Amino acid sequence: MRLAELSERSGVSTATIKYYLREGLLAPGRQVNTTTSEYDEEHLRRLRLIRAMIQVGRIPVATVREVLTHVDDDSLPRTVRLGAAVWALPQVPEPDADDEFVQGSRVAMEELLGTLGWTHAQSLASLSPAFRSLVVAAAALRRLGYDWSAERLVPYARLMHQVAELDLDFMEAHVSEAEKAEVAVLGVVLVEPMLRALHHLAQEEESARRYGLE
Amino acid sequence: MRLAELSERSGVSTATIKYYLREGLLAPGRQVNTTTSEYDEEHLRRLRLIRAMIQVGRIPVATVREVLTHVDDDSLPRTVRLGAAVWALPQVPEPDADDEFVQGSRVAMEELLGTLGWTHAQSLASLSPAFRSLVVAAAALRRLGYDWSAERLVPYARLMHQVAELDLDFMEAHVSEAEKAEVAVLGVVLVEPMLRALHHLAQEEESARRYGLE
Repeated sequence: MRLAELSERSGVSTATIKYYLREGLLAPGRQVNTTTSEYDEEHLRRLRLIRAMIQVGRIPVATVREVLTHVDDDSLPRTVRLGAAVWALPQVPEPDADDEFVQGSRVAMEELLGTLGWTHAQSLASLSPAFRSLVVAAAALRRLGYDWSAERLVPYARLMHQVAELDLDFMEAHVSEAEKAEVAVLGVVLVEPMLRALHHLAQEEESARRYGLE
Repeated sequence: MRLAELSERSGVSTATIKYYLREGLLAPGRQVNTTTSEYDEEHLRRLRLIRAMIQVGRIPVATVREVLTHVDDDSLPRTVRLGAAVWALPQVPEPDADDEFVQGSRVAMEELLGTLGWTHAQSLASLSPAFRSLVVAAAALRRLGYDWSAERLVPYARLMHQVAELDLDFMEAHVSEAEKAEVAVLGVVLVEPMLRALHHLAQEEESARRYGLE
């Protein structure tokens, strides 16, 4: 398809598509002659992904490029490619290692991974932004006097593991190899708001069941 | 305790405490004489909650006051009091009702609640910010060509219902009546980042189990 059709089918203006091409977010089309290029379904799919990250996920263009570079790099381990979205998203800053609440929280969260038997997550912990976010969130609660022990988090973690199994089952069953890493990106950017909304709805439902609406 | 002790035990400066008192976020202490007031454990707990909302949750002072007003209003139904945090947090704007993706997504999400048997959530749907967020997130995915059907969301919703049961079980078992609404606020502001981090960690673990780290 030509640029005009790519624009129409994606809902992205030709000027914006040209900008993405210049910035290297989108691979060049197949050159037909000096002024015309031909684009395919792969371009359309990638454009949708870029639009989702920028418009819905509000991710800066430079970060989008970084995420896509990881997603496209066949030399990277699959787990890293699938995790590219999480690893490249805006990260919680490294917490102050001397802070007593951070230290206590790190010990508790390492204990949590041990109790869960999440051996891979344990070996990745020192690198993982997810582990860092967990330590920071738990430290914030500790600082306020709320001690979320490893023990208390175990049932939550087991449920979130079931959620992660659904994520990967879906990816394996419904998505082509080429699309897998893209779907992982979408999962972080678009599916999480749905999960959060479902959590709040479930709280409303359960609260109304227990206490009524009056 | 005096203001100085309240400040020391909460880690909030006396100037900031005075500001919260002026803004009506914190109830006045018991007046001992013209220049001195006496504060109690209730003040300390409330101060911690305010600090959590403002510093960790980055919630504006005016919204904090609104949330606390709901939390403290005994005349409101309990479900509404417990939901005050969610209902008062920054909301997804009302989506365009004429948009075909929004319409399709609303129908699908109503079907989801029916399939789940969440009758209370159904009756609250037209008012609920959580339902609105769900419709908006699903519409964004539809617009990008990803159709998250009601059927596909059912297992996710059932898991999030189990998470909500844990939330309320904890509240009932460990928290005094006076603290319940406060804990609900903390749940939204502080526990959600932990849940999200656990989800990402679980994805890393499951992905590494299935595909290895090489």
